[in-house]
Amino acid sequence: MGALHEGHLSLIRQARKHCSTVVVSIFVNPLQFGPAEDLNRYPKPVKNDRQLCREAGVDLIFWPSREELYPHDFQTSVKVSPMSLRWEGEARPTHFEGVATVVTKLLILVRPSHAYFGQKDYQQLLVIKQLVQDLNIDTKIVPCPTIREADGLALSSRNRYLSPNQRRQAVRVSAALRQGVQLIKRGVCHVPTIQAKMKNVLGDVDGLDIEYLAVCDALSLEPLSRAKGNMVILGAVRMGHVRLIDNMLVNVPKE
Amino acid sequence: MGALHEGHLSLIRQARKHCSTVVVSIFVNPLQFGPAEDLNRYPKPVKNDRQLCREAGVDLIFWPSREELYPHDFQTSVKVSPMSLRWEGEARPTHFEGVATVVTKLLILVRPSHAYFGQKDYQQLLVIKQLVQDLNIDTKIVPCPTIREADGLALSSRNRYLSPNQRRQAVRVSAALRQGVQLIKRGVCHVPTIQAKMKNVLGDVDGLDIEYLAVCDALSLEPLSRAKGNMVILGAVRMGHVRLIDNMLVNVPKE
Repeated sequence: MGALHEGHLSLIRQARKHCSTVVVSIFVNPLQFGPAEDLNRYPKPVKNDRQLCREAGVDLIFWPSREELYPHDFQTSVKVSPMSLRWEGEARPTHFEGVATVVTKLLILVRPSHAYFGQKDYQQLLVIKQLVQDLNIDTKIVPCPTIREADGLALSSRNRYLSPNQRRQAVRVSAALRQGVQLIKRGVCHVPTIQAKMKNVLGDVDGLDIEYLAVCDALSLEPLSRAKGNMVILGAVRMGHVRLIDNMLVNVPKE
Repeated sequence: MGALHEGHLSLIRQARKHCSTVVVSIFVNPLQFGPAEDLNRYPKPVKNDRQLCREAGVDLIFWPSREELYPHDFQTSVKVSPMSLRWEGEARPTHFEGVATVVTKLLILVRPSHAYFGQKDYQQLLVIKQLVQDLNIDTKIVPCPTIREADGLALSSRNRYLSPNQRRQAVRVSAALRQGVQLIKRGVCHVPTIQAKMKNVLGDVDGLDIEYLAVCDALSLEPLSRAKGNMVILGAVRMGHVRLIDNMLVNVPKE
């Protein structure tokens, strides 16, 4: 979606290392925004994005117009269900259908051997892996680790919406997730206990509302009541107009 | 879906004439059958289909198993809306989603330059054209004329379900559509009049129920009240357990 930051650049570097040709798609996809969301104010720093791509050795930017991808008589949508229903899908009911539709189009148009997606949008990553498998698209989806600020905040194009005060508080999201990871690593299994301690870290900040904070199976995203196996801790909070999501993977090895 | 007849063979001949390699897919797609429909009794004359393909010079039959196309964790569907909502979509609510999903998969797997579909399933043809355009699939969809028995009945794998008596009555469907075409060609514009005369041709046959009989815009499938432009007359009837559909194109040239 453009507004490139170090997170995107880490994907480009991965692609640059492993592929002969690197294509970046930049498209603020209207289908994945809800009616009350930030489509119109989503940042579009065109010159800066182009400059960053050039510096990172990108061979081609695929920068379609809205009319090219969605002509007036466009009628088709791609849905991945049940993976799209929970978590972000509950908070943003049409979001993943928009993501799945545009990613299907982009992969069919560009036909990459590999496509690099950030683990930051963890559920999106699973939705995309699923649709690629289900529609037999001949592209390998490569997940890349979340890039963070020095204090732990996951990079996101939406971080620029935060006021200086909100930015200071935002660090608590990753701190809470890290707390969850540490508890699980120390052997705490009872998820309500883990959640309560994560909420303590988030604290009672005015204007920070928790949407969800869940310990889930890393493949199905079903919430767990006891920590076990490969897990992801998913978090979503709202700070004023801004929604922030983050996640961390954690694993309890079998005895 | 196999159970090949002269209609399918005409598609194969078209492909054989224009393409260097001809691939036929045979797959009775469970997704496009409703729960009360004929999935389990749908004919599967495997040997005969293979023999017909061989005789017609087919290079490859793509004959996947259900588990290959829909593994147990399959979650993705493709929807074309509003084109799928009317007519057959109303009678068979999940049908076109099943068709759109399997055709997307088949086109992505086989990657044909051209794909040949019968005009007999006219709304299906429009749904497929739309999804190919919308998902940027690099295949040209080639519509082929409906093949008919000597008395006018459109060929269909489902005709074999008809009893001898039903088979005699079934000819009335194409006769009614032809009556509609003739009236429009003679300058009759008032669609309710045309519909009434078509119903007269269908007659009051015991066990023949009309589902729809409509004069529509040939591109949008919106029903018309006055005949004009490029039109399709769509018909669907039910004879006992058997649903028959048929259609004819007609055009009123502008003055």
